[in-house]
Amino acid sequence: MKRVIVLGATGSIGTSVLEVLRAHAEEFRVTGLAAARPGGELAALAREFPEAAVAVADDPEHALQARLAASPRSGAVLTGPEAALDLVRGGGADICVAGISGTAGLLPAFAAAEKGMRILLANKEVLVSAGGLFNAAARAGGAEVLPLDSEHAALWQCLDGRDRAAVAKIWITASGGPFRTWTREQMAAARPADALKHPKWRMGAKISVDSATLANKALEVIEAHQFFGFPPESIGILVHPQSVVHGIVEFADGGQLAHMGVCDMRQPVRSMLLHPERRAGALPGLDLASIGRLDFEAPDYGRFPLLALGLEACRRGGGGTALYNAANEAAVALFLEGKLSFPGIADAVAFAMRGCAPPEPSSLADVAALHAEGARKVREFAIAQPHFS
Amino acid sequence: MKRVIVLGATGSIGTSVLEVLRAHAEEFRVTGLAAARPGGELAALAREFPEAAVAVADDPEHALQARLAASPRSGAVLTGPEAALDLVRGGGADICVAGISGTAGLLPAFAAAEKGMRILLANKEVLVSAGGLFNAAARAGGAEVLPLDSEHAALWQCLDGRDRAAVAKIWITASGGPFRTWTREQMAAARPADALKHPKWRMGAKISVDSATLANKALEVIEAHQFFGFPPESIGILVHPQSVVHGIVEFADGGQLAHMGVCDMRQPVRSMLLHPERRAGALPGLDLASIGRLDFEAPDYGRFPLLALGLEACRRGGGGTALYNAANEAAVALFLEGKLSFPGIADAVAFAMRGCAPPEPSSLADVAALHAEGARKVREFAIAQPHFS
Repeated sequence: MKRVIVLGATGSIGTSVLEVLRAHAEEFRVTGLAAARPGGELAALAREFPEAAVAVADDPEHALQARLAASPRSGAVLTGPEAALDLVRGGGADICVAGISGTAGLLPAFAAAEKGMRILLANKEVLVSAGGLFNAAARAGGAEVLPLDSEHAALWQCLDGRDRAAVAKIWITASGGPFRTWTREQMAAARPADALKHPKWRMGAKISVDSATLANKALEVIEAHQFFGFPPESIGILVHPQSVVHGIVEFADGGQLAHMGVCDMRQPVRSMLLHPERRAGALPGLDLASIGRLDFEAPDYGRFPLLALGLEACRRGGGGTALYNAANEAAVALFLEGKLSFPGIADAVAFAMRGCAPPEPSSLADVAALHAEGARKVREFAIAQPHFS
Repeated sequence: MKRVIVLGATGSIGTSVLEVLRAHAEEFRVTGLAAARPGGELAALAREFPEAAVAVADDPEHALQARLAASPRSGAVLTGPEAALDLVRGGGADICVAGISGTAGLLPAFAAAEKGMRILLANKEVLVSAGGLFNAAARAGGAEVLPLDSEHAALWQCLDGRDRAAVAKIWITASGGPFRTWTREQMAAARPADALKHPKWRMGAKISVDSATLANKALEVIEAHQFFGFPPESIGILVHPQSVVHGIVEFADGGQLAHMGVCDMRQPVRSMLLHPERRAGALPGLDLASIGRLDFEAPDYGRFPLLALGLEACRRGGGGTALYNAANEAAVALFLEGKLSFPGIADAVAFAMRGCAPPEPSSLADVAALHAEGARKVREFAIAQPHFS
């Protein structure tokens, strides 16, 4: 019986993970659940898994406790900004699903690394902002890290059992997002509602906007660089609107292995939870004959400047990727609030990065400082915009 | 230094193999060369590899010896219908490339199996007509068999290191051949020159016609069934005109691994000769962004009845696949001689198979009898055709 902590239990990753865990209840026991807010969904999960400790970051007026007052539970309820961290530090789990997105997910993921858990990593910031530190913490703690992002899970499956020295290049695919065929002029007028219409995946607002700017792909290249250890120039991006091929490994001899699957987060989640087994399941298969056609094209760096900025940060190394990530996170938040235009996101990030070549962070305090710096500069940029309100 | 015998040295497989062997001359030594006829090409090879024994099946008036009279060679020259067999039986090789197509390649491949060589198998007949016997011979002799067909080499590379029990299905791709978009009426009037225009591969006449009828794919399904041990119903065919994806393995959990590469026989040849290494080479890589589009469709069994007939033989098992293979070989020869129409190939094979459910051959004599029976029935069918000349 493997004990599992699900960080970000009510988000899109957590929901997929819990669905898979329920389907394999004879093998997995949920021992911890963490979420940002005490909504009805979290209370329902707390009742469904009465032995699991529940952590909630922000619980005004003890709403979660109130909701759970009448339910017979044995698991603890932790509240406050360090609740998820305390949950992981408390141990009692073999597997930690790191599904809290953004910087809030950093400390709990590090705690899981120190505890030597098997970490299913969906939080990009861990590797993008603090990849060097995280890899060192996982090595020191004896943690095994497996990727939950569909692209990285695909690459991982292509590389499994293969000689990494024989790899010439890895390719990450991109659906191209909702603005793949939009002109610069159309994108200049894009509103949050347009950016949230992802053609292939249902995800949270932040990551949906990142898919529209293609910042998401830059983050994934940085993540792949940190995760697999390949140099930035050996990681390519292919725009592939059908999102059937999720990742490709190109070997030195010219042969390529591609991993394909339906667009369903339960697919990589099941693979990683059940690894090394591959069990038949309720997921629909992929029928290439009925899909009929797969397209591939090179990304357009001109129309998607955030992609170019992120890849530049990856090539330069050091703390630049943390700065890029923080600036992007702040700029996306301002865009969603209507305080930056869509092209303003890239302009703000470019402004934050200009002339900066921060060194590799040597502590999480350094990472936090880079995050604060990125957010501060983006705010400085935004305030100077004519339509800032 | 690995010693290599190349059977079918002047054919399309042999030519690719020798090109790769020349590029890795520090690791491979050619110790044997076999071809059907003593053309100038074989004499040139015999001079290039003076230590290699040379076998030629049909050498009227000792033409090969005459050509080589003045050249300083230490390798033997063997002639006659059993020359290739004697060459392999003579030993002196670690690797045998079984590149003689048709039934002529059967006995030498069996001899290599008995000798315990690593066999790079390009001859389909070995597995299609005598798969059970050949697998038993390879096991008994301790021979390792690797596939040289691009589709099987692709599947082999997808399966390498994977748990076969977790495989739900394997998919073989088909370019669709020169008549992929032709109507039945157009195909009824197709001449040999039309059938030989393969869109993707340059190959011999027999295999080019098999690609036009899609008999080639039925033979490859039977081959895959014998080689990998998957049941016929777990082997699918996808028509894929760009021939970029050569094989796909679909796992029980819904994930799929595809092997992709350029259409160049040197690709699988290099993979198998250098296995388990994957070395950089002079071959051009695959650029998906510039290819742009990959199409997939289900095969049309109505327009390509030889495909359906071959799959039916595979499902039934026993000696039916040997009969199918022999009948097809005979019918294709008659088509190339202008003695059967293009649809006549399938009609002749259907005639040969009608009412026949031969048992699994228990010896090569049984296989030879099935081959004779298939050829006899096809001739019987052809003679009854109005335009037989």
